[in-house]
Amino acid sequence: MSEIRRDPTTGDWIVVAPRRLERPWQPESFCPFDPGAPETGHGWDVLILPNRYPVVSADAPPPRPDGFYETARAYGRALVVVETPNHDLDDLSDLPVEQIEKVLQMVRGEAARAASDPGVLYLLYFRNKGREIGVSLTHPHSQIYELPVVPERIARELERAEEYWRSRGRCLHCDVVVRESSSGRALLRGTRWTAFVPYYARWPHEVHVYPLRHVQLLTQLDGEELAELARVLKAVLCALKKAVGRPMPYMMVLHQAPLRGDHRYYHLHFEIYGMYRPDGRLKYAASAETGAGIYTLDTTPEDAAERLKKALASCRRDTS
Amino acid sequence: MSEIRRDPTTGDWIVVAPRRLERPWQPESFCPFDPGAPETGHGWDVLILPNRYPVVSADAPPPRPDGFYETARAYGRALVVVETPNHDLDDLSDLPVEQIEKVLQMVRGEAARAASDPGVLYLLYFRNKGREIGVSLTHPHSQIYELPVVPERIARELERAEEYWRSRGRCLHCDVVVRESSSGRALLRGTRWTAFVPYYARWPHEVHVYPLRHVQLLTQLDGEELAELARVLKAVLCALKKAVGRPMPYMMVLHQAPLRGDHRYYHLHFEIYGMYRPDGRLKYAASAETGAGIYTLDTTPEDAAERLKKALASCRRDTS
Repeated sequence: MSEIRRDPTTGDWIVVAPRRLERPWQPESFCPFDPGAPETGHGWDVLILPNRYPVVSADAPPPRPDGFYETARAYGRALVVVETPNHDLDDLSDLPVEQIEKVLQMVRGEAARAASDPGVLYLLYFRNKGREIGVSLTHPHSQIYELPVVPERIARELERAEEYWRSRGRCLHCDVVVRESSSGRALLRGTRWTAFVPYYARWPHEVHVYPLRHVQLLTQLDGEELAELARVLKAVLCALKKAVGRPMPYMMVLHQAPLRGDHRYYHLHFEIYGMYRPDGRLKYAASAETGAGIYTLDTTPEDAAERLKKALASCRRDTS
Repeated sequence: MSEIRRDPTTGDWIVVAPRRLERPWQPESFCPFDPGAPETGHGWDVLILPNRYPVVSADAPPPRPDGFYETARAYGRALVVVETPNHDLDDLSDLPVEQIEKVLQMVRGEAARAASDPGVLYLLYFRNKGREIGVSLTHPHSQIYELPVVPERIARELERAEEYWRSRGRCLHCDVVVRESSSGRALLRGTRWTAFVPYYARWPHEVHVYPLRHVQLLTQLDGEELAELARVLKAVLCALKKAVGRPMPYMMVLHQAPLRGDHRYYHLHFEIYGMYRPDGRLKYAASAETGAGIYTLDTTPEDAAERLKKALASCRRDTS
């Protein structure tokens, strides 16, 4: 039994996928992402694998009609992007820029493939880093969910961006980028991308990375944009690692438009949430955040930006 | 500097309160909630204290106008509800029903007080339990935030409930209660309250507790309703403690209407999120949940309800 259910009181989608609990125990020394493991083989730099315990799958049964609640078939693909054969690297930012670029190219390739599947409406690309936020496999990897529904937070962003576009005739996110790029919260600006701590950060060390070009989908990014994106992500993730003296757990999520429909009002971007407070303690999301959706910051986005700018300078010194 | 900022891309409110980092180090053996501590004194059963490191306060400065971003003054009160003088109790459910009833009466009293403050628009009552979700002080306590804004998740619920009320002429939550009470997910039903695992649970052991009467605010609950609520919460929290063999970290949040305005379409309720999976491992909210707002369950709400019903029976045996 696997299906997607909708909360009528909030609009949230929940993927009910009990088979995931069947994940077998493995000895600590075994890594399914190492070269030569049963599913990996040899001779690769970057590998996209099906998740063995997927939340959605091509053979999902039709949802059981309920008559009151909204449901969807748990159709789709859950994939793991193994970013390097090297098990012992700590983070994506430890890879050479060319390798990060290759990761991004392969994800873009998968996005193009997914766009041709009429059952897939949304491609969510994300990366969790750090045992403290629940990561059990430390071999560098990110993930892809190809879903038949649009995640609620993305839907909310789409709605607000569309409303702004209609009422003002402009892209909300372009206006945010102009504002942030000229603020003290700006971290770096290339010829194609910009990175900043947003005025409205929810988490202690949060960075948003935007293409300067108004595009909606990963598949619209050209080779030069991917190449610069690789450099920007390497720099930002290196800064997160150095900001408070020890590697910081983080979440990184691509916000892009749904794969179908006209979403010209939208603007794709990456959101990265560094979860340590300035004193190196983990920020937890408890009742206020999880139960009510109100956020509290112990630091200011402006302070976080200063800390990250210093860390960026230190990363630059290391690589020059 | 303390202020509330709004994310224009999602509508989230973020309370920026950097003074909270000034919390001093205290020896592990010192508990500020024990009788005789500097702020508590003696001779009390339940105590409501101002949070010494509040996210909002009566002396918050006016927000700095921005011209582009929406802001609000971080006005309000942050309070701690010390639920018992007994430091060594593990959980609210370990208190006698009469003591839990007294806690609820005091919170209702504070809600009545807050309603008379024109600067407060929303009262958020919540309880975090367990070090694994970030609780540092283990002395049984819950919290109150009196806020000048409506938290985003509540605002979303209000909007959907109002839309349903307008289009169908009924309360969405009343319809949910009818549906759930007759399902296998129903846990218990008194003469005034009902508790169930919702069809649309986001977390592994999630329970919603609803008054059968269609009311919007805590202050509308009468003495008999509070008394039965105390019994229901004790039972549900006891079940969470027993469901997987060791005390489960949880979040408990009251969802009520804003303190002002006409919200007759809304229906208050408690949401309780038990954060252990069936195998006793913590469920983490990472990129998919935090960054995109899509949820995955490794179990089914139906399985969770079966497990909680067994635990409820065991709790009943213990107290009979």
